[in-house]
Amino acid sequence: VIAVVCGGVGAARFLSGLLDVVEQSEVVAIVNTGDDLELYGLSISPDLDTIVYSLSGSSNAETGWGLSGETWAAMEALDRFGAPTWFRLGDRDLATHLYRTARLGEGATLSQVTAEIVSAFGLGLAVVPMSDDKVRTRVALASGEEVSFQEYFVKLAHAVRVTAVRFEGSAMAAPAPGVLEALGAAERVVIAPSNPVVSIGPVLSVPGVRDVLAARRATVSAVSPIVAGAALKGPADRLLEELGATASVGGVAKWLTGVAATLVVDRADEGRVGEVESEQMSCVVTDTVMRNRSVAARLAEVAIGGTP
Amino acid sequence: VIAVVCGGVGAARFLSGLLDVVEQSEVVAIVNTGDDLELYGLSISPDLDTIVYSLSGSSNAETGWGLSGETWAAMEALDRFGAPTWFRLGDRDLATHLYRTARLGEGATLSQVTAEIVSAFGLGLAVVPMSDDKVRTRVALASGEEVSFQEYFVKLAHAVRVTAVRFEGSAMAAPAPGVLEALGAAERVVIAPSNPVVSIGPVLSVPGVRDVLAARRATVSAVSPIVAGAALKGPADRLLEELGATASVGGVAKWLTGVAATLVVDRADEGRVGEVESEQMSCVVTDTVMRNRSVAARLAEVAIGGTP
Repeated sequence: VIAVVCGGVGAARFLSGLLDVVEQSEVVAIVNTGDDLELYGLSISPDLDTIVYSLSGSSNAETGWGLSGETWAAMEALDRFGAPTWFRLGDRDLATHLYRTARLGEGATLSQVTAEIVSAFGLGLAVVPMSDDKVRTRVALASGEEVSFQEYFVKLAHAVRVTAVRFEGSAMAAPAPGVLEALGAAERVVIAPSNPVVSIGPVLSVPGVRDVLAARRATVSAVSPIVAGAALKGPADRLLEELGATASVGGVAKWLTGVAATLVVDRADEGRVGEVESEQMSCVVTDTVMRNRSVAARLAEVAIGGTP
Repeated sequence: VIAVVCGGVGAARFLSGLLDVVEQSEVVAIVNTGDDLELYGLSISPDLDTIVYSLSGSSNAETGWGLSGETWAAMEALDRFGAPTWFRLGDRDLATHLYRTARLGEGATLSQVTAEIVSAFGLGLAVVPMSDDKVRTRVALASGEEVSFQEYFVKLAHAVRVTAVRFEGSAMAAPAPGVLEALGAAERVVIAPSNPVVSIGPVLSVPGVRDVLAARRATVSAVSPIVAGAALKGPADRLLEELGATASVGGVAKWLTGVAATLVVDRADEGRVGEVESEQMSCVVTDTVMRNRSVAARLAEVAIGGTP
């Protein structure tokens, strides 16, 4: 079994490559839920949905989130009420949230509902939320305000300075059933190329996760989401700088060295191998920019310990 | 001011006629919420929405409920999960429920949210839920099972025998702000041609409502939803029979005599005036089948005490 610690888009791409080299039944994705939100009474889990939509070939290539062939009738009708519509929910995407909300209301856990959604989308891998308990990433801004992750990421388009990030509820959260077991027993753990601060960070904040990874650090590898000093997507580079690290493979290594022994970096960072090694991580150089699925598959093979 | 005690479709038609003869600002509609339900975490108020959609010209003439030009992408996507979809929610209709649910979640009352929705649909009359507290119509079936109103009405298509109806929560429910005041102070109260058992019944079950109507009974009139022994729509005729009354204008009179002094019946029931009068109600005969708006307007005029 290969366990993958996941955020959203970058992790979904990595998983699509991994599933070309490993059977679905041998993959456990452990997914950030710090981005989750409640909106209009609905329970929304963006990273879980991104992975399911993406791996099932249902994701919207145009927007980079949500479902393909999406329509927006509900959102357009919400305009009538002057309701905030900065978090865009497509009509088909809404069905996922309605189903999740209904099942949670019936007493199902987030892991149970997620397994049902994974199966409804015809997938065979295990997709597990980091916790069935509520953990919410809160972002403190230079303005003094603290906002939810989605307010930071979507509403403010992450165009604001961040002074701190915390994971509300994580100290009291239990890892979801199977999380520590999978992370402990997997042949190999890969930390996906997701934002180390706000995508991987919440998973690591769940009690027990950091310890189980630290204890088996030698067979944990991470893929750097920073290439040549910049994030391929999102604010990972700025967040690392704002929180006192550097936006570089060295900064990523510093962030993850306690829980992973190997960092996979892009060829563009060949000259920065020393920065990684000085953080007590070994460094593997390969193509990490997953412009297509075969690059993703080769990257996955390297990350799980094959040869670059 | 004219106060109208309302269910859904029949009341909406009556109100559309009333608004042709009375200023919107002079009309208060007090609406049944016993049909309300929670579905997929959403708070749904079918009778309130039917009235707002209908009066604003937004209702779906094809289905008889929901919004015109409706699409069904969310419902179709729900099929994937094998979720129950017997209660059909259109994509645009969903927006109303999302907005209502969001506002209730923020602590707004159902009356406040309803006023916002009424205003968003450009209406000027007052539409007031009978209570801001949860009252739920429960229907006991001959099978021994007890179901929610919507299960009875939509899922079972009311094709089952009913042995009893009760209004769960009504004993503890407070009338919404303004309800008793409007019913007490209105120049005239009209009980709309809605199902007397399951549409008018819940409103009358809210503490204080029956008393305030009884005290001013002389200026309360009701329009019979039963014409020539049959309901124009829905199961009012069967419900009256099943609950020990007769499906006739006499049966309606018996049901409402405590709270209204006048029953307006259709010309088809001209021969049954005596049945009404023997229930201590005066009987007015006119056209009550609202096949178009001008019939509705003439009916409204009669109901508020004009000449037939």
